[in-house]
Amino acid sequence: MEQQDGIRRIVRGKVWLVGAGPGDPELLTRKAHRLLGTAEVLAYDELVSEEILALAPADCERIPVGRRAHGCRHHEERIHPLVISRALEGRTVVRLKGGDPFVFGRGGEEAEELAAARIPFEVVPGISAALGAAASTGIPLTHRDCSASVTLATAHAATGEADLAALPRTGTVVLYMGLGRLAETTAALVRAGRAADTPVAVIARATLPDQREIRGTLADIAERVRAAALVAPALVVVGEVVARAVVPTRTALPRDTVGSSRLVGS
Amino acid sequence: MEQQDGIRRIVRGKVWLVGAGPGDPELLTRKAHRLLGTAEVLAYDELVSEEILALAPADCERIPVGRRAHGCRHHEERIHPLVISRALEGRTVVRLKGGDPFVFGRGGEEAEELAAARIPFEVVPGISAALGAAASTGIPLTHRDCSASVTLATAHAATGEADLAALPRTGTVVLYMGLGRLAETTAALVRAGRAADTPVAVIARATLPDQREIRGTLADIAERVRAAALVAPALVVVGEVVARAVVPTRTALPRDTVGSSRLVGS
Repeated sequence: MEQQDGIRRIVRGKVWLVGAGPGDPELLTRKAHRLLGTAEVLAYDELVSEEILALAPADCERIPVGRRAHGCRHHEERIHPLVISRALEGRTVVRLKGGDPFVFGRGGEEAEELAAARIPFEVVPGISAALGAAASTGIPLTHRDCSASVTLATAHAATGEADLAALPRTGTVVLYMGLGRLAETTAALVRAGRAADTPVAVIARATLPDQREIRGTLADIAERVRAAALVAPALVVVGEVVARAVVPTRTALPRDTVGSSRLVGS
Repeated sequence: MEQQDGIRRIVRGKVWLVGAGPGDPELLTRKAHRLLGTAEVLAYDELVSEEILALAPADCERIPVGRRAHGCRHHEERIHPLVISRALEGRTVVRLKGGDPFVFGRGGEEAEELAAARIPFEVVPGISAALGAAASTGIPLTHRDCSASVTLATAHAATGEADLAALPRTGTVVLYMGLGRLAETTAALVRAGRAADTPVAVIARATLPDQREIRGTLADIAERVRAAALVAPALVVVGEVVARAVVPTRTALPRDTVGSSRLVGS
């Protein structure tokens, strides 16, 4: 396997489409972390943090690829040409994306281009922003009592009334890129049949030390968020689950004990 | 912080609700991996693999907690009593769940019980099965051309026709626990307005070496899966994105190069 892999990389490189997770570097997968350490070329979304980028070798080539962590640049239609050319030169390229490559990460589109260029690739999933924000705010995305499904959708400039009306009227809805048009979006959800008093949480910088969360309802969240001067990117969580949140007790991880004996009770 | 944490753990333990991801131990987060190494008590879903359980200290107490990795045991209403009692004794408890604790993992219900018992807890997200299966099969969950949302839902014995009819008719739908009632579920989705020729993939043991995938349409997938004798647990992915899958080129990870110089080009 190793030898085959070595031969292949000499002839033609490989591109790893890798999810960087929601922000906290600890929420990278072990696989993403390991791959970062092997990158010869690192092509990254601008929203990926310096702390995560620093996990790649100091001498690897770094290619910033626009602010696409949450799919914000819909006019950027194509994979970066340097990603293709470096792979054709035989390099190992890590294409690092915020969240998960296949949830509003345009990983599907990039995979199609890589396949068309006959460049080997693999996809490494990441903790999508909704899952990260849920864990850090204590909002369960599903709950036996009140939500049997969770829908991940977008609410940016290209999202029309019809798209919002097509969302389910029950269960949890999480809107990515939802801050810019929050007043229009929440009004459209009410027109589409959601109760105006449906609980809503807006979470910015989820999983990071400066995470902020604003709560309200479909009727008043836009005004509350405006008053709080919350800045994008942020996630909008809509549904009864918001009222079922139980705030976690954040403490330091027991870092010192890993790989050795435990502090207590060993 | 460390001292404060140490004191707290002597007085009262802490429970970490941790997502184990879709199966591949490499898809644990770094945080989950680190916490496993510190566990004094490990309470785990039976579907979590031996390979992952082996990451906990050999001498930690192990408590199997039923086959709930995908929420299969809906009659199990409560967190395991030993989780509560060990935490009250001051132990660090890792409650390890398949996938993500807040996506059909009943993490919300367990968090409520922990809060009621005044036990500190935190939630560590995991790669939910849908994200793992998407990455390993090359099926993008969203795609600019054909899917602006992805809905995660369940299709087990308790899921009624009304629940399935409430799912969106556009975008991607992923059904967890969908294998047992696949014929009824796919028929209900067609009655609810989805085209009978909508592409469907059923993926078993996603991200593991023996992963299996069967493709078809809403009209014929149940028969194809029956003929292939696929066994649960499996995920059902419904939507045009299935036809847009690009199969990744799986090769060995460049394991030997992590933390040292690179094999090629360094």
